[in-house]
Amino acid sequence: MKKIVVVGGGTGNFVVLRGLKKFDVSLSAIVSMADNGGSTGVLRDELGVLPPGDVRQCLVALSNSSRMMRSLMNYRFENGNLEGHSFGNLFLSALEKVTGSFEKAIQEASKLLFIKGKVLPVTTNQVHLKMILKNRKVLEGEGDIYLSEEIEQGYSSIYLEPYPKVNPDVIPEILGADFLVLGPGGLFTSLIPNLLVENVAEAIIKSKAKKIFIANLMNRKGQTSSYKVSDYLKELVRFIGKDIFDYILVNKARPSKKLMDVYAEEGDLVVNDLDDPRIILADFLSPPTKRGKKDLIKRSLIRHDSKQLAKEIMKIVSLT
Amino acid sequence: MKKIVVVGGGTGNFVVLRGLKKFDVSLSAIVSMADNGGSTGVLRDELGVLPPGDVRQCLVALSNSSRMMRSLMNYRFENGNLEGHSFGNLFLSALEKVTGSFEKAIQEASKLLFIKGKVLPVTTNQVHLKMILKNRKVLEGEGDIYLSEEIEQGYSSIYLEPYPKVNPDVIPEILGADFLVLGPGGLFTSLIPNLLVENVAEAIIKSKAKKIFIANLMNRKGQTSSYKVSDYLKELVRFIGKDIFDYILVNKARPSKKLMDVYAEEGDLVVNDLDDPRIILADFLSPPTKRGKKDLIKRSLIRHDSKQLAKEIMKIVSLT
Repeated sequence: MKKIVVVGGGTGNFVVLRGLKKFDVSLSAIVSMADNGGSTGVLRDELGVLPPGDVRQCLVALSNSSRMMRSLMNYRFENGNLEGHSFGNLFLSALEKVTGSFEKAIQEASKLLFIKGKVLPVTTNQVHLKMILKNRKVLEGEGDIYLSEEIEQGYSSIYLEPYPKVNPDVIPEILGADFLVLGPGGLFTSLIPNLLVENVAEAIIKSKAKKIFIANLMNRKGQTSSYKVSDYLKELVRFIGKDIFDYILVNKARPSKKLMDVYAEEGDLVVNDLDDPRIILADFLSPPTKRGKKDLIKRSLIRHDSKQLAKEIMKIVSLT
Repeated sequence: MKKIVVVGGGTGNFVVLRGLKKFDVSLSAIVSMADNGGSTGVLRDELGVLPPGDVRQCLVALSNSSRMMRSLMNYRFENGNLEGHSFGNLFLSALEKVTGSFEKAIQEASKLLFIKGKVLPVTTNQVHLKMILKNRKVLEGEGDIYLSEEIEQGYSSIYLEPYPKVNPDVIPEILGADFLVLGPGGLFTSLIPNLLVENVAEAIIKSKAKKIFIANLMNRKGQTSSYKVSDYLKELVRFIGKDIFDYILVNKARPSKKLMDVYAEEGDLVVNDLDDPRIILADFLSPPTKRGKKDLIKRSLIRHDSKQLAKEIMKIVSLT
């Protein structure tokens, strides 16, 4: 069975894993641990736990439990002091407290949720993402970086503090992969934070896996405004140290005018500017959610379609 | 298989169920829904859910899941806005929101926790326990009643508001029981609130089950100070409408002087003043928890021993 390792964090991972889960492949998710926004940020601050949010999303994506259980994990309390907390985040944080470690918490949650595959935090050190902009402003934490609209004016460095040791299970996973998938996901908030952990970039270079990059659909205003596929690639290559990608999946479909108008405030479309044999163009847009149908991801309307992504990735898998 | 139905709420139920769980009997717990203190009270107020605390304790008592899962359900957050919330309460409340009803939440939780038996809320109406004292003071909610030290000066009424309909599953359960167990537990806060629900007392009288009352070990200061076994019985009979008990289990062992000193502030020992063939005297005291051993019930040091209670109940079961 082919082994696919997905590196990232957040909704991007969710979509890729959810699609691949239906195929006969071995799956692992390596997850950024820099999140400090929203419910996750509050739990880190108040309870001193590791950030549960991105891990939760991967667990839900790989879960073979009932739709009810998956809805429960993503349920957000709507009132009082619990407002905004996702139940799944509280679940992982309480498990961390009861078992004494985040890794054990993930193991227990994996059993309870009947996970197909593995979810590995890239590090189990408490880290904070920092970014120093060209204008000398310091952005502290992924939350601040996510909200900043000044990043496109240039940054001089991005790093994790303190410099983290990699989770010892991560390197063998990368080295043993047949396929490594990076993206889609926030460039500075989900993808690069994995590459900032000790030995991760080196392992990616060393791995004999075929490497697949999935380009984002949309740029984030003030961060990656008018970035093209080549710009994303350049940034990743900068942090990996080498252009190691074998395949680059790029969306070729255009969202409806209506959706684009809704999105105008948030950012513009990522345009492909590469004429490169590694590029695979396809329609990766998720169809609009049917009215009344409850949705497991609520953040973005313009997003990748799990099935289409999985289909193109599985084409690559079947070629090799 | 003999069917034992336990009526109450809180730690008392926990101890009885935990002991009986190891025997080959069919078990059900009927649980008071008047709790509005602590974590449960906050969740009722803020989220509008039904009170999860007592149901959680019964679920944990009947759970065949790992010790880790049971610890998780009873885990209380220690910091920040979540401080004092038991994880299991959040679990039941989130499940209530996701499934749309408290009964469904209990069903789902029962599956996840591998419950032996059934846990039934006595009503699924949102009710509040009220007590009017002889001095005309009105105590609003179980929390206030639990904390009051004026009850022993006399009360003129205790009732649930609004007057609740019984959970339709409860009556057949009582009528179909071979044994009904009331107590131990807070007289005004756990036992009587079940008897205040429409049709419950009538069903208890009508049921052909052998009825067992387990007397408390300790009186609660200012509430049942210097109550004897006959006083408890009198109060219960008043709310049931008839003395229906076939067996009365009473502790005959004395706690250590050291424990009694610790407890002096909270209340005095319940003394047996009945010379009644229905009385079964035995040593029901739980041995002191071993140092360092994590304990699933933290509220009281002087408490019933699960094993001893179950042993005496099973003797009665085997007689019939």
